[in-house]
Amino acid sequence: MVHNFFAGPAILPKSVLKKASESVLSFADMGLSVLEISHRSKQFGEVMEKAENLTRTLSGATDDYAVLFLTGGASSQFYLTAMNVLGKGETAAYVDTGTWSTKAIKEAKLFGNIEVVASSADRGYSYVPKNFNLPSNTKYLHITSNNTIYGTQYQKMPDVSVPLVCDMSSDLFSRPIDIEKYDIIYAGAQKNLGPAGVTLVIIKKDILGKVEREIPTMLDYRTHITKGSMFNTPPAFPIYVSMLTMEWIMEQGGPGRMQEINEEKASILYNEIDRNPCFTGKAESEDRSRMNVTFLPTKEEYTEPFLDMCAANNCVGVKGHRSVGGFRASIYNAISKESVQVLTDTMKDFANKFG
Amino acid sequence: MVHNFFAGPAILPKSVLKKASESVLSFADMGLSVLEISHRSKQFGEVMEKAENLTRTLSGATDDYAVLFLTGGASSQFYLTAMNVLGKGETAAYVDTGTWSTKAIKEAKLFGNIEVVASSADRGYSYVPKNFNLPSNTKYLHITSNNTIYGTQYQKMPDVSVPLVCDMSSDLFSRPIDIEKYDIIYAGAQKNLGPAGVTLVIIKKDILGKVEREIPTMLDYRTHITKGSMFNTPPAFPIYVSMLTMEWIMEQGGPGRMQEINEEKASILYNEIDRNPCFTGKAESEDRSRMNVTFLPTKEEYTEPFLDMCAANNCVGVKGHRSVGGFRASIYNAISKESVQVLTDTMKDFANKFG
Repeated sequence: MVHNFFAGPAILPKSVLKKASESVLSFADMGLSVLEISHRSKQFGEVMEKAENLTRTLSGATDDYAVLFLTGGASSQFYLTAMNVLGKGETAAYVDTGTWSTKAIKEAKLFGNIEVVASSADRGYSYVPKNFNLPSNTKYLHITSNNTIYGTQYQKMPDVSVPLVCDMSSDLFSRPIDIEKYDIIYAGAQKNLGPAGVTLVIIKKDILGKVEREIPTMLDYRTHITKGSMFNTPPAFPIYVSMLTMEWIMEQGGPGRMQEINEEKASILYNEIDRNPCFTGKAESEDRSRMNVTFLPTKEEYTEPFLDMCAANNCVGVKGHRSVGGFRASIYNAISKESVQVLTDTMKDFANKFG
Repeated sequence: MVHNFFAGPAILPKSVLKKASESVLSFADMGLSVLEISHRSKQFGEVMEKAENLTRTLSGATDDYAVLFLTGGASSQFYLTAMNVLGKGETAAYVDTGTWSTKAIKEAKLFGNIEVVASSADRGYSYVPKNFNLPSNTKYLHITSNNTIYGTQYQKMPDVSVPLVCDMSSDLFSRPIDIEKYDIIYAGAQKNLGPAGVTLVIIKKDILGKVEREIPTMLDYRTHITKGSMFNTPPAFPIYVSMLTMEWIMEQGGPGRMQEINEEKASILYNEIDRNPCFTGKAESEDRSRMNVTFLPTKEEYTEPFLDMCAANNCVGVKGHRSVGGFRASIYNAISKESVQVLTDTMKDFANKFG
């Protein structure tokens, strides 16, 4: 058995993969593959409906919110959020927790006044900044709930009086969502939601239609709201597999139960990091991510032999992002406690041999 | 066996579906699903490389052209092509052959002067206009090579002195491409190329970088060229299945052989339409599509019983588009001559019973 610690595209539940594989051959008693049926067919219509309903159940989104299944990844939402809701001359506040936030800030600047109200760049993005002031007339505060590269995560959302726009790509549905705090939640699927190729957007409908710029039809959220994400052909298979994954989350007990399991898995790994003389945590303790556990070797010469030992024990994807180095174990919803234990045992063995 | 005449997402080769299904369980001896591996892994890198190389082989694209695998469908290319290459105040010419062309024209108008030099709206988009004059300084001529809804297709590309920008979504790789005629070819995958969720763009590199407008990073073709379609996470599975489908096209003998087979299949169906007293062709003869065969009942009351008879004979997707009515049989690369024969036999049986 292979233990999949890839940061994304990332591990999906075995039962989801089994159903997905079967549906590629034969779907819904149609005698056809799910890949070769019209998105206007009754059968695919049911997939879309289930996917939307599950998203509402998992996020708590009421009818005040639209649920969209788009393409282009979170990277497209970096400009789309600002393009659709931030008028020229209006101000939005952004917290920079590295990489993805930094990119979101860059793209949003094309559309309004972007104030970076806090940044953790001063300590290598190893923490989540908590104290900041918002400019008056701040339209929204944009945050990235979890940083896959540095391994930081908001354990408590900022307590502000403006709505949040939140990139939840890497911790969506890993814990409950207090939907009322948000105007927009967006997430590329390829961590906790499904395979690459679909982007979930949950958006409060009444914030739209207030900017004056000309927006191409495909870039206007309202186009996709009006057409139920089927203005044009949607990314059918990625949506289908996301729907299966959401069903699986519900079967596990929902986001509350996922949070308990995820905290337990993260504890096992962080406890070992803190105990083991060969490793040290990358992110500051209180902001440690429950999804992407980043850690460094205490001696540089440990790097290669530890990766070799991981490979020998069938732990893949443990190499840290090139901009940070060291190690990263991504432990999304679908990874088992057993896989986390195998990695932890590998760390113990490593310390016994090299420490 | 089900005979799949859906217009898109549409039939894929059985051997492709078999490999795709297997890879959803276990890919490239990694012990992991193709859905859950990093797009930066060596194994997925090989998929991207093969997909690009096959696209070059099938299209004839030299190194002067970039090959991109993007998202957002052809509907996104409607604005992206103009946004990236048409400067403010510059002129592009468009031929309107219905629906998709009409949408392309609408979106391009946000970026430059769009001259609709010819339209077949006067006869219900039942033909391809051939005589038109281009304004001086026309930057490019945009055409839609095949119209899925009306069932028309350019059997010969316009003989003009300006470069073509061509939406080939519904007949890509169904026949050889004379690449030198084109500055841009784009196509949503979900007809001849693969499942929904990826969009192929073949673009002449030296036409880029000449417009002055500010373009969000994700909307600039140069971003994706520089990063080999991996600036952000690509739609991995749709690309993978497209790669398998392109391999299949090569195994069949390539685009030249596909054209022969497609013409034979189309002839079988059009001959029956012309012979059968219960049906009449929708598109004018010389512009009939080899991909989407549209036909009408000679009496309105034939519609429901013919669709019932198709269903009884396991022919699915034969209902015409709601804007045209009647019937449409989409006969893409992957449909067999046998399936076309079953539909033709159904038409014969229908005439015997009702005609």
